[in-house]
Amino acid sequence: MIQMSIIGATGYVGLELVRILSSHPEIRLQKLISKSYVGKKFSDIYPSLRGICDIVCSDLNINELVKSSEFVVTALPHGVSKGIIPTLLQNGIKVIDHSAHFRYKDISIYEKVYKTKHGFPDLQSESVYGLPEFYREQLKDARLVADPGCYPTCSILGLAPALKSKIIDPSSIIINAISGVSGAGRKEDVGYSFCELDSNFKAYGITNHRHTSEIEQELSCLTGGKIELSFTPHLAPFKRGMMATIHANLTDEMIKKGITTEEVIQMYEAFYKNEYFVRVQHLGTMPEVKNVVGSNFADIGVIVDKRVKRLIIVSAIDNLLKGSAGQAVQAINIMAGLPENTGLKFPGMHL
Amino acid sequence: MIQMSIIGATGYVGLELVRILSSHPEIRLQKLISKSYVGKKFSDIYPSLRGICDIVCSDLNINELVKSSEFVVTALPHGVSKGIIPTLLQNGIKVIDHSAHFRYKDISIYEKVYKTKHGFPDLQSESVYGLPEFYREQLKDARLVADPGCYPTCSILGLAPALKSKIIDPSSIIINAISGVSGAGRKEDVGYSFCELDSNFKAYGITNHRHTSEIEQELSCLTGGKIELSFTPHLAPFKRGMMATIHANLTDEMIKKGITTEEVIQMYEAFYKNEYFVRVQHLGTMPEVKNVVGSNFADIGVIVDKRVKRLIIVSAIDNLLKGSAGQAVQAINIMAGLPENTGLKFPGMHL
Amino acid sequence: MIQMSIIGATGYVGLELVRILSSHPEIRLQKLISKSYVGKKFSDIYPSLRGICDIVCSDLNINELVKSSEFVVTALPHGVSKGIIPTLLQNGIKVIDHSAHFRYKDISIYEKVYKTKHGFPDLQSESVYGLPEFYREQLKDARLVADPGCYPTCSILGLAPALKSKIIDPSSIIINAISGVSGAGRKEDVGYSFCELDSNFKAYGITNHRHTSEIEQELSCLTGGKIELSFTPHLAPFKRGMMATIHANLTDEMIKKGITTEEVIQMYEAFYKNEYFVRVQHLGTMPEVKNVVGSNFADIGVIVDKRVKRLIIVSAIDNLLKGSAGQAVQAINIMAGLPENTGLKFPGMHL
Amino acid sequence: MIQMSIIGATGYVGLELVRILSSHPEIRLQKLISKSYVGKKFSDIYPSLRGICDIVCSDLNINELVKSSEFVVTALPHGVSKGIIPTLLQNGIKVIDHSAHFRYKDISIYEKVYKTKHGFPDLQSESVYGLPEFYREQLKDARLVADPGCYPTCSILGLAPALKSKIIDPSSIIINAISGVSGAGRKEDVGYSFCELDSNFKAYGITNHRHTSEIEQELSCLTGGKIELSFTPHLAPFKRGMMATIHANLTDEMIKKGITTEEVIQMYEAFYKNEYFVRVQHLGTMPEVKNVVGSNFADIGVIVDKRVKRLIIVSAIDNLLKGSAGQAVQAINIMAGLPENTGLKFPGMHL
Repeated sequence: MIQMSIIGATGYVGLELVRILSSHPEIRLQKLISKSYVGKKFSDIYPSLRGICDIVCSDLNINELVKSSEFVVTALPHGVSKGIIPTLLQNGIKVIDHSAHFRYKDISIYEKVYKTKHGFPDLQSESVYGLPEFYREQLKDARLVADPGCYPTCSILGLAPALKSKIIDPSSIIINAISGVSGAGRKEDVGYSFCELDSNFKAYGITNHRHTSEIEQELSCLTGGKIELSFTPHLAPFKRGMMATIHANLTDEMIKKGITTEEVIQMYEAFYKNEYFVRVQHLGTMPEVKNVVGSNFADIGVIVDKRVKRLIIVSAIDNLLKGSAGQAVQAINIMAGLPENTGLKFPGMHL
Repeated sequence: MIQMSIIGATGYVGLELVRILSSHPEIRLQKLISKSYVGKKFSDIYPSLRGICDIVCSDLNINELVKSSEFVVTALPHGVSKGIIPTLLQNGIKVIDHSAHFRYKDISIYEKVYKTKHGFPDLQSESVYGLPEFYREQLKDARLVADPGCYPTCSILGLAPALKSKIIDPSSIIINAISGVSGAGRKEDVGYSFCELDSNFKAYGITNHRHTSEIEQELSCLTGGKIELSFTPHLAPFKRGMMATIHANLTDEMIKKGITTEEVIQMYEAFYKNEYFVRVQHLGTMPEVKNVVGSNFADIGVIVDKRVKRLIIVSAIDNLLKGSAGQAVQAINIMAGLPENTGLKFPGMHL
Repeated sequence: MIQMSIIGATGYVGLELVRILSSHPEIRLQKLISKSYVGKKFSDIYPSLRGICDIVCSDLNINELVKSSEFVVTALPHGVSKGIIPTLLQNGIKVIDHSAHFRYKDISIYEKVYKTKHGFPDLQSESVYGLPEFYREQLKDARLVADPGCYPTCSILGLAPALKSKIIDPSSIIINAISGVSGAGRKEDVGYSFCELDSNFKAYGITNHRHTSEIEQELSCLTGGKIELSFTPHLAPFKRGMMATIHANLTDEMIKKGITTEEVIQMYEAFYKNEYFVRVQHLGTMPEVKNVVGSNFADIGVIVDKRVKRLIIVSAIDNLLKGSAGQAVQAINIMAGLPENTGLKFPGMHL
Repeated sequence: MIQMSIIGATGYVGLELVRILSSHPEIRLQKLISKSYVGKKFSDIYPSLRGICDIVCSDLNINELVKSSEFVVTALPHGVSKGIIPTLLQNGIKVIDHSAHFRYKDISIYEKVYKTKHGFPDLQSESVYGLPEFYREQLKDARLVADPGCYPTCSILGLAPALKSKIIDPSSIIINAISGVSGAGRKEDVGYSFCELDSNFKAYGITNHRHTSEIEQELSCLTGGKIELSFTPHLAPFKRGMMATIHANLTDEMIKKGITTEEVIQMYEAFYKNEYFVRVQHLGTMPEVKNVVGSNFADIGVIVDKRVKRLIIVSAIDNLLKGSAGQAVQAINIMAGLPENTGLKFPGMHL
C-alpha cells in the first residue's frame, strides 16, 4: 500500500484526488492538509464523500507528513507550493506538484510568463513533466513531478503525432480550446457565479494565456524546432470537461501526396498504440466532452480538409482527471511501479 | 415623462429595472446610483446595455436626486435603504423600496424575523405593500411602496382565491417553492458559484425563511384570520424564474359539495378576471417556468385531487420581474396614473 | 464470477449498468441485447465506454442467454419484459426487472394504475420488491426481483422511519419530488429536447403519477395501515439526481412530547444504523442532489417545525443508481451472496 | 400598419417572430400558418404568448393570404418554401424566406452544396441577401429576401472590415463557431434531447457545414476575390446565442506597419459607424454571448497578436434574433420604409 497525502486538499483538484483514490486498490490517503479547514472532516466540507473519506483535515506538520507519507501531492494556489517542496524532497518524499512552477525547462520563460523569480533552478532541472505518454521513462525514477496544465495536456496529445510525422506546418497551428468552469478552481468571485456563467460563452486570456508557453515548450521539445502558435481558450457553461479544436496547414509534402483522413487516423493509431488512455477516434466519429467526462481518457479525432489543405484535430479530456488529478495518479502509479491504469479504469459518465 | 432614479442600480434588480425601462414609453431614467461604480458607465458594467443605457453611475447626492427625479427605486442590500428613505420622502420623492423594511403591518414581526430595530413606525404605517392585484387603490396615492418579496408574490397570488372562497383549510397549507439563482442577487460567494450550483438542487431556509412571515401576513389580512403555514424554498439550476407548488386540504364543505377542478378554475378566473398579469391556466394545462420567464405575468394552475381531498395550486413567475423589478414598474405605473401594463406587455421568452 | 446479461441494454438504465459493472469485481457482462442495435458495438453507441465495454449487441436468443448467464436484467419499455420473463425463469435464470409489472402485491392495483391485464399472478406472488433496506431476507432466495421505481425508492427511504416510529400522521403526507431528466429515459420527443427543458421547471403527473400507488403500497405494508398520500413530481434541468421534500403533521403524541429535530435524527440513525447506502444527515445539514449524484447513496435529512407542528423530510438519490441501476446491482449482490456494496462503493461526484 | 403573415409559424423562428412582433409598433400579424397545428391557438402551443398572441393557426390559403398580408415570412424546413414563394410573389406579396434556397448568387454552388435542383433561376437573380449592413439599398426595393444563415451573419460581420481594409490574408481565415441548441430548430431527435446535450460540447459538420459556402460567397463578393476558409461549428449547452472566434494572418503590409489592436478597433468603428446593431468592443473588452442574447445586436471584438502575427476577431449574436428572426424584421423595416431599428431596440438579457 502506497501512503499518500495531499497539501491543499480541499480545492477541486484535492476533491478529485480524494474521490478517485477512494477506489484505488494500492494507494491509501494519510493526511489531508488544508489551512482553511483544520479540524474539520473532509466529508463535512464535501458531503458527497461521507462514509468514503472521513479524514479530519490537518495543518501542515512536516514531521508527521514525513512519517506517514511516501508521496505528497501539492495542490495549492500558484506560487505557494514552492516554499514547501524542497523540504518535502529533502525528507525523501516524492512530490507531484499541481502548480506551473516546475513545468518549465527554461526558467527564464517561466519567470517571464509568471512574472516572478523561480528560485529553485536545481530542482527545476530534475523535475519531470508529468505527461506519461511522453515522459514515462523519466517518471519511473522521478522525485519531483510537475503535473501538466489541463489545456497543455489536451493540446499536446492532439498535436504530437501530426507534428512528429510532419503532417502539418508547425508555424500554422491555431488552437481553440473550451473548458468547463471547474478549471478555474473553487472561486469566490462574481465572475464565476452561476448567474454570470450559465447559458453564457466567452473567450478569455486571448493572446496571453499562460498555458500557451507550456504547450509551445513541449511541442518544441518534441519536434526539435521552436514552435509558436495561437491559443485561444473559452469558458463554456458546464462544470467539467475540455475540448481543443485545432487547425493547421498540411505540409506541401502531404498536400502533394494527397494525404487522406484515413491515413492520418492510421498514423495517430500507430503513435498511440500502446497508450491505454488515448483513444483515437474511428473514421466518421469525433470526440464529445460527454464521452470523457468522469474518466481519465483523452479522445482524439482528426479530419483532413482537402479543400483548404488543412488538418483539423479535436481533442477532449476531463480537465479534472486527465487534465489534473487523474493524470497525477497515473504518474504516481508509474513512480510506484504499478500498472499505469491502476484505479483509473473507470469510463466516462455520458450522462 | 416620469423622471426616475435608482439607488443601488448595479445589482440584478437594478439591471432589470434599467433593461425594462429602456423600452418604457413614459419613464425616463435619470440617476443610477451605485457606490461601487461611481464614474463608470452602466453599460461598461453590463455591456448588454451598450447603446441602450450609457448613463454614468454616480454617488448619492440628495440635492441632485431631488432636482431630477419624481420617483426613486431603492434596490439596496437589506438594512441600507432605511437610512435614505425618510430624506427622500421629506423632499417629495416617491419611493419604491425593494428591501423588507416597510413590508410589515406589524413592526414587531419585522423586528423578530429580521432581528433588528425598525426605527420608523410612522413611515411603516403609511407604506403600501406593492402587490397591485391587492393594493391597487392604496398605491394610487402612495408615497412609500414596499416592493413585495418574490416568494410572497408567487405564493399569495396562488393562494388568495382559494382562501378567499374558503375552498381550502387555512391551517393545512404547504408551500414548496423553487427559485432560480438570481433571487440571491449578484453574489461573491463560493456557495453561489457555477460549479457548486449547476446540476444541483437543494432545499434551504427550511422552517425559517423570512418570506414565510410576509406570506402569512398578507394571507391573514386577506382572510381576516391568522394563517400559519409551511414554506420550504429550493434552489434550482437556472438563472431566473420561480414556481410554488402548494398543497392544502379541501374544506369539509367543499368535499361534501364534491368540488371539481373545473369549478375551482372558474373561481380563480372570476377572481382574477380584471388582472392583466395573472393568467389562470385552462383545464389540462399547468404553469411552467419557461412560460413566464422574461415577462411580468404570473401563471396559476389548479387541480383538485379528489382521492386525497386536497387542492394543488401551481404558481409561476419570473422572480426578477413579477417578483421584483417588473412589479415595481407596475406599481409606479399605478402611482403615476398610467395604464398599469405600460411598458410591461412583453411576453415570456420560452427559449 | 457471476455471469450477467441485459435485455434492453442500450437505454439509460442499460448504460448505467454497463458503466458500473465495468468496475464490479464479481460480475461479468455476457450478452447485451438490443433490438435496435444488433451487430453494433456497445461502445459505438456510447463512446464513453470504448475500451471498457466493446461487446457487440445481439438479438434475443434464449438458448444462448441460458447458456451464458445466471442473471438477466430486463430494462425494457413498460409492458415488454413480461413476455420474456417467464421463459427466463423456466430456464433457471434469475431476473431483475426494471418495469413496474412485478412490483405490486395487489394485482388489481397494478391493473388499474397501468390500465392493462397482468397475466402472471403466480410469478407476481413470488416476485420480491427489490428495495434491499426492506426486503433483504427475501432477496437472498429470490428468482424474480422487481427493481423499484426511482420516486418510490427516494420517498419510501425518507418516510419509513417516521411512519414506523409513529412520529407523523400517515394521512397528512405530502411529497414534492424533483427529478433530473434522465428519469424519462432516452427520448425522441420534442418535450424532452434541450431547448424545451433547459432553464425550465415544471410539475407533471399531478394527482395521477403511477409511482404514487407504489409508494402507498410499500408504506402501507410497512405500517400495517392503508396509506394515501399526495405525490407531486417535478422536472428540473439537470441530467441525473432526484430529491423528495416531504411534509407531514406530527402526531398528537409527538407534539405533546415536544419532539425535537435531534430526537428524530436519532430515530432515523437507529433505524438505518446497519444500512451502508443510507446516510442520515447530521443536525444542521440537509441533502443536496450533488452529494449523491454518481453514487448509490441515499441522503436523508429531517427537521421538526415546532411552529406548525410538522416534520419535514428531505431525501436525495441518484435516480439512475440508487433509483435504478445501482439498486439492481445491490440486489444482485445479495442474491449472489456477495457483500451488498460490492462494486458500489464509489462516492458522489459533487462536480 | 404593415400586415404580415408567417408560413411555418410554429417553429422556433416563427415563435421568435411572433414574440418580437408583439411589441412592434408598425407591424400587425395576420395569419399564422402551420400545417401541424391548424385550428389551434398559437398561445396554446406556446403558452408564454397567452394574452399576447392568441391567433388561431390556419392552413395555407393563398387567397386569404393575399387579401390579408403585404409581407410573408416563410420559415419552413429546407426545400419546402420554394414551392410557395413564386405564387406569393405573383400575387404581389413581399417575401422573406428563411431557407437557404435564395441565398446564392451562383445557383451551381447552391445545387452542389444542397444536393438538389434549384428550379427558379429568375427569382434567384432578383433575390436580395437580407444582411442590411451590406445590402441596405437593394433591400429597399426587394420583393424577395433571403434571410441569411446565423453562422454567416456572425462570421461576415466579424470579418468584413478586416478583409475590406486588407488587414488579413484572405487565404488564412479559420472560423471556430459555437451555437446554442435552438439553432437546430424544434427537434424530435434523441441527439437533441436534454440528456444528450446538457453539459456536453462537440464539434459537428467539420469540413462540410453548408454555411461555409454562404460565408465564402459573401466575403468573396465583398473583396472581389475568391475566398476559401475553414469553418468549424460547435454545439454548446445553452439555448440561444452564438459566437465566432476567428483567426487570420496579418498581411505583410500590416506586419511591417506594426498595426496595433487600437488601430484595428478604429478601423472597425469607422466601418460600422452608422450601424445601430453592430457594437465594436472597446479596447480591453471582448464579446460574451450573454451580452447579445435577447437582442438584435452583434458584438465584435478584435485583438492583434503581435507575437504570432495574427488578428483574432470574436463576434457574438443571438442566433434567433440577429441570426434569424430579428434580422428578418430589420429587413422588413427597411423594405417598408420604417426606421431600421423599429421594434428592435430591446437590449440583451444578461440574466
